[in-house]
Amino acid sequence: MKLKLLLTGNELMTGDTLDSNSAMIAKMSLDAGIQVNYKATVSDDLDQLVSEISRLSESSDVLIVNGGLGPTSDDLTAEALAIAMNVELEEHPVAIKHLVEWCTKRNYGLSEANRKQANLPKGVEIVANASGSAVGFKIRLNDCLIVCTPGVPHELKTMMAQEILPQLSELLPNTHQPKRVRFRVFGYGESNLQELISKTYPDWPDQLELGFRASMPLLELKLKVDHLKDHALLNDWQAKIKALVGAHIVTDDNRSLAKVVIDLLAQQNKTITFAESCTGGKIASLLTEVSGASNVFEAGFVSYSNAIKTSLLNVSGIDLAEQGAVSETVVRQMLSGALKASGAEVGVSVSGIAGPNGGTDDKPVGTVYLAWGSQTSMQARAFYFPGNRIFFQQIVSALALDLIRRDLLGLEEAPIYFKERKSPN
Amino acid sequence: MKLKLLLTGNELMTGDTLDSNSAMIAKMSLDAGIQVNYKATVSDDLDQLVSEISRLSESSDVLIVNGGLGPTSDDLTAEALAIAMNVELEEHPVAIKHLVEWCTKRNYGLSEANRKQANLPKGVEIVANASGSAVGFKIRLNDCLIVCTPGVPHELKTMMAQEILPQLSELLPNTHQPKRVRFRVFGYGESNLQELISKTYPDWPDQLELGFRASMPLLELKLKVDHLKDHALLNDWQAKIKALVGAHIVTDDNRSLAKVVIDLLAQQNKTITFAESCTGGKIASLLTEVSGASNVFEAGFVSYSNAIKTSLLNVSGIDLAEQGAVSETVVRQMLSGALKASGAEVGVSVSGIAGPNGGTDDKPVGTVYLAWGSQTSMQARAFYFPGNRIFFQQIVSALALDLIRRDLLGLEEAPIYFKERKSPN
Repeated sequence: MKLKLLLTGNELMTGDTLDSNSAMIAKMSLDAGIQVNYKATVSDDLDQLVSEISRLSESSDVLIVNGGLGPTSDDLTAEALAIAMNVELEEHPVAIKHLVEWCTKRNYGLSEANRKQANLPKGVEIVANASGSAVGFKIRLNDCLIVCTPGVPHELKTMMAQEILPQLSELLPNTHQPKRVRFRVFGYGESNLQELISKTYPDWPDQLELGFRASMPLLELKLKVDHLKDHALLNDWQAKIKALVGAHIVTDDNRSLAKVVIDLLAQQNKTITFAESCTGGKIASLLTEVSGASNVFEAGFVSYSNAIKTSLLNVSGIDLAEQGAVSETVVRQMLSGALKASGAEVGVSVSGIAGPNGGTDDKPVGTVYLAWGSQTSMQARAFYFPGNRIFFQQIVSALALDLIRRDLLGLEEAPIYFKERKSPN
Repeated sequence: MKLKLLLTGNELMTGDTLDSNSAMIAKMSLDAGIQVNYKATVSDDLDQLVSEISRLSESSDVLIVNGGLGPTSDDLTAEALAIAMNVELEEHPVAIKHLVEWCTKRNYGLSEANRKQANLPKGVEIVANASGSAVGFKIRLNDCLIVCTPGVPHELKTMMAQEILPQLSELLPNTHQPKRVRFRVFGYGESNLQELISKTYPDWPDQLELGFRASMPLLELKLKVDHLKDHALLNDWQAKIKALVGAHIVTDDNRSLAKVVIDLLAQQNKTITFAESCTGGKIASLLTEVSGASNVFEAGFVSYSNAIKTSLLNVSGIDLAEQGAVSETVVRQMLSGALKASGAEVGVSVSGIAGPNGGTDDKPVGTVYLAWGSQTSMQARAFYFPGNRIFFQQIVSALALDLIRRDLLGLEEAPIYFKERKSPN
């Protein structure tokens, strides 16, 4: 089934509003087994609306038009559909009844502007709006079912769930039952993961769709099949990919990396601390964005200057002077000091050069040292993430959480980024 | 000038990703005086891409294609453009040079997958990508300039600003000289600022466009005129709005709130510290995202538990027990302790209930106390921001920076949020 979307609204065209409605329609449709095939977006412009309705109705089985059902002069969907269908607008009895009831319930009179919302193309059938004044409506044109829907997100959502999707599902062949699996991966870039998979499995099955999405600093890997007969195949390949990508898979259940770390800490009844220099509080912030962080986290330290590294975390002034703040010795001492001051069982410390200034030949911008683990079992290592400041802080913060995740899982095997992100010196 | 967009990506079609790139292109273009006229979105499907490139190039002066430049098999933009143009793909010398340099700098070899990114339609001109591996490229087809751009947002942003918009601006007629002013405002919501302005200035001039954009937790207010003859009018109204909204305007020069605070601190030769509980490191993180933060920031404390508030910041255990961690006494002691431990001249401390759990009748979720200023001139106050956890952390972190901004400016007048965001108890 070819499902296309036509979105209308000046605010979508100027970029003042992010288009979340089309994503909602797409996700809800996909759950019902129908993939959106195409989206067009236009401003509140009558000519563009008319021509897009005509054009898209010729190449789709279902066209959902979203927006432009309101009472104001820039709401043009009904008028545009009438022109495209070559019919008149007329007051629709079901629509006017809905509007009168809507206003009565709220103790205000029906305004002229509201009454306009009942002026619909001749021949349309009403699609009920359980939570707003603007009814939806549908009609066939060029073998395409056109459904006009309101732009208010919660009204659209209810209408999709209660009215539209049940009807569309009836039009589907019942063998079409898509299923998908999503992995969140840390350590692989899109291209090296793609290469690993194509080299390992040159004979990838046609029915199995493989997709990637950069969800910085993690990568999302998706497997998808469209039909019930391929569900077993999906399960097989889910296991194969799990074996191949191994512990670089952070989760296949939609939790964030921070949430995975919090859950591991809670299971092991441990608390965590952070001593952050170049990440400036971002690691603690990522963790505390998750509700429940307080069960596993008591204290974090942002030790931005050398003097503070000494006074707060007891880092040796001599080592700072001789080896520099960005060094293995210093991050080990930072972590040790943070563990002591916080009483936490495990932690991560970070010191690096976020840039754009501060780099040297020896330690260029992007160089960073991390120490992680506990007082008795601490590891440390230099990494290299050249790029801009925000990117650097994001990826290093995620790296810190991933290192502690691996530590908590007791993994022996080195992650690929030990090699790929090795510091140049 | 007719500017159209073609967006490609399965993740845009499934609704897994909200399309923020097209909004970014639209906003940046509008600032340069060019309005996006149409958007089409397709999945990573070669046939659809080819037909949309051909169709849209026939009806636009400029077509920006976004996405599909990556190294994987679902990145199809170059191939689609080659088919639409009826030319071959060939390795482009500038592109391959960029890729080799990119990989060399990161100490890894050029993979086959990466090399594919240099395989471009014959005849294209390269559009430099300052921050990513995938170069952009452009070429003319059917009197339309087609520009292919990367899907990674920060790469796209840099390319738009440095490469694409300067070229498009040259194509504009020179009587049409849009100019706009943007204020970043903290403390006002869109509807109350709109009301203040319409009440104060009922006779708003037609040529002057007034716009708002929620840029959470700040609000952006925009004034815009389209023609050179109205530039003087814009200057007049810029002054009027400045007088009306006063110190709630954080900046009219595009700096972030954190950057404004850093600049004030540097001018006054002061350093700052933070003692954060419910914001969990976010205030420090906002500040340290800005290059130059190290000149004014040495230490931050994330004191999440009561025990740490005492051991690290010397908060009285008795006061914690009697008044609770979310109290004026405790935030004053937290700030005092942080100032002492860090040696900073000014600071902010925060303790509140981010939710979703932990609220009481007396102190519901959303209650937060802040203390700000110096040891000798400290203020403290309770505020109330009901809403979800992430929203709460964002707005309270911005509030902390705004309070210290007002303190550094020596403002006497109380901001409106002292009244509007007063704690209920």
